[in-house]
Amino acid sequence: MNKSGATMAEVYNHALAAWSISAAWEVGFFDAIREHGSLDAVAFSADRGLDAGSVRELVRALSSADIVSRDGDTVRPGPNFAEADRSKSLFHWMTRGCGELFDTLPDLMRKDNRSGSFYRRDAAAISVACREINAEWWDPVFLPVVETLDFQHVADLGCGSGERLIRLTGARPGVRGLGIDLADGAIEVSTKAVAEAGLSDRISIVQGDATALEPRPEYAGVDLLTSFMMGHDFWPRAEAVASLRRIREVFPDLKHFLLADATRTTAYPDSEMPIFSMAFEFAHAVMGDYLPTLDEWGPVFEEAGWRLVEQYPISVPAESVMFHLTPA
Amino acid sequence: MNKSGATMAEVYNHALAAWSISAAWEVGFFDAIREHGSLDAVAFSADRGLDAGSVRELVRALSSADIVSRDGDTVRPGPNFAEADRSKSLFHWMTRGCGELFDTLPDLMRKDNRSGSFYRRDAAAISVACREINAEWWDPVFLPVVETLDFQHVADLGCGSGERLIRLTGARPGVRGLGIDLADGAIEVSTKAVAEAGLSDRISIVQGDATALEPRPEYAGVDLLTSFMMGHDFWPRAEAVASLRRIREVFPDLKHFLLADATRTTAYPDSEMPIFSMAFEFAHAVMGDYLPTLDEWGPVFEEAGWRLVEQYPISVPAESVMFHLTPA
Repeated sequence: MNKSGATMAEVYNHALAAWSISAAWEVGFFDAIREHGSLDAVAFSADRGLDAGSVRELVRALSSADIVSRDGDTVRPGPNFAEADRSKSLFHWMTRGCGELFDTLPDLMRKDNRSGSFYRRDAAAISVACREINAEWWDPVFLPVVETLDFQHVADLGCGSGERLIRLTGARPGVRGLGIDLADGAIEVSTKAVAEAGLSDRISIVQGDATALEPRPEYAGVDLLTSFMMGHDFWPRAEAVASLRRIREVFPDLKHFLLADATRTTAYPDSEMPIFSMAFEFAHAVMGDYLPTLDEWGPVFEEAGWRLVEQYPISVPAESVMFHLTPA
Repeated sequence: MNKSGATMAEVYNHALAAWSISAAWEVGFFDAIREHGSLDAVAFSADRGLDAGSVRELVRALSSADIVSRDGDTVRPGPNFAEADRSKSLFHWMTRGCGELFDTLPDLMRKDNRSGSFYRRDAAAISVACREINAEWWDPVFLPVVETLDFQHVADLGCGSGERLIRLTGARPGVRGLGIDLADGAIEVSTKAVAEAGLSDRISIVQGDATALEPRPEYAGVDLLTSFMMGHDFWPRAEAVASLRRIREVFPDLKHFLLADATRTTAYPDSEMPIFSMAFEFAHAVMGDYLPTLDEWGPVFEEAGWRLVEQYPISVPAESVMFHLTPA
């Protein structure tokens, strides 16, 4: 039995609670309760242009998992409110970002269907979720470390929305930034964000595949490289060694490489899997992607010509880590 | 607190278990374990043409909710296996039939988005789930009652796959059947099923909207009418009265009407909602459909000219019911 000894009715209703946490976040429900201590579901619906009947059902699903309590249309935080509020981005990643993947599992598991672009995820939703996961759990590890480093030119591999670069560069006069991403959408969004932040003179965005970087003049002078939430894309092992070796080659002036990612968990019995990890590992298995364990990384760095200076644990997702690397 | 006092990690992982139950059903996983007592996940994957890595994650998600236990790749039934096996169609309705609806809740809740065909469900998946729900929980109530009735010509409103008609007609030489459905897909599927059962000479299928029936020559002689899992489509109240009155008018020779449907639950606190009901009520709220409670039905029958002979409770979904009606 798992710790809670859940019945099938509870398992069933928890799925509805999971979808509801994501939706509640997106329509501003958590913020409203946190700020005001309670809310009126009907007034909230009218205020946000939401269908009151749907909101009432959403509140019930949240209530069934003790996230809120309700008395008529008055909604107050329940015993699980703070935990749900803090982990809402993890739910969003799963239900909104990967919902279609999990809905269509029976199709995606069939070998005959697993070629070409065989699955779909919501890239925009995943990017929103990852931004929040970063802010909540990764920045508190990353920011103090980056403070101790001396750098003039930072490149971000898989720069996504460009937020990390803007943050690192904006607060440091004279520091330049370079964003690298493969996705057209990321190029577009980050270029726009950089312009809006008034940093176009200091931050450039270029398109590039982190797993197969070619030398570019823009890479000269880059002394700090960061890469978040995409290290697993380098794998399987042989490809990871090749990619990491190439990174070292194409950035001739690099002093520090901060590489942060979730790794495949190894320490948990099935009934005690921590939040997020099982969805992350399940989705990547379905997509056919290899996820390295924490222990698998170390020898790869050595083989690819990197020295592991320090390894910082990140608590959520479980067994996430930030590696501080320097060229060996 | 709900009975189990579930943590957010458990809520999270239960969503994965819910998706996995549906997928496991569809790929024959429950049947294989039930028949053989255990299975080898790798051999099962190879045998069914499934990706072994995805199947391993599916097994872990099921194991996290005590549905199976695993020892390496050997999978055995867990404490919740029988309950999950029996309720798998209810999970399938939710995650495979209505998955996209729940994934996109934040969009569908916004009033601005709620016009036209604003939501999508998987009609084929819902029909598969409903067939199983019927067989598991509704037929044991329906079949003994229909045995007691004397009829020569049965019509099924919302006939779907045609299975109910084929069953009622096939076993009763001389009895004729008439299927009525609005959906093109149902017309096609049921016409084909009737032909395959060799009953085309005794069962006809016609297209018609149960909520706005027009008199047809085919309706003469129909002495038994059945309608399953669609009674809520008659509502709201004024429309239900009108539709039921019209049904009485267009079937001049009707003796019995067996109307079975789930109703909106009223008896359960949020933390003790039974399986299925919360998803059923949530989805219908999002779709903008009214769901009557059990108590709301009675007066409507009277007003529409029907006598309620008997009311048979159906246990799953909770507060489901089969009404035996006769023209007043």
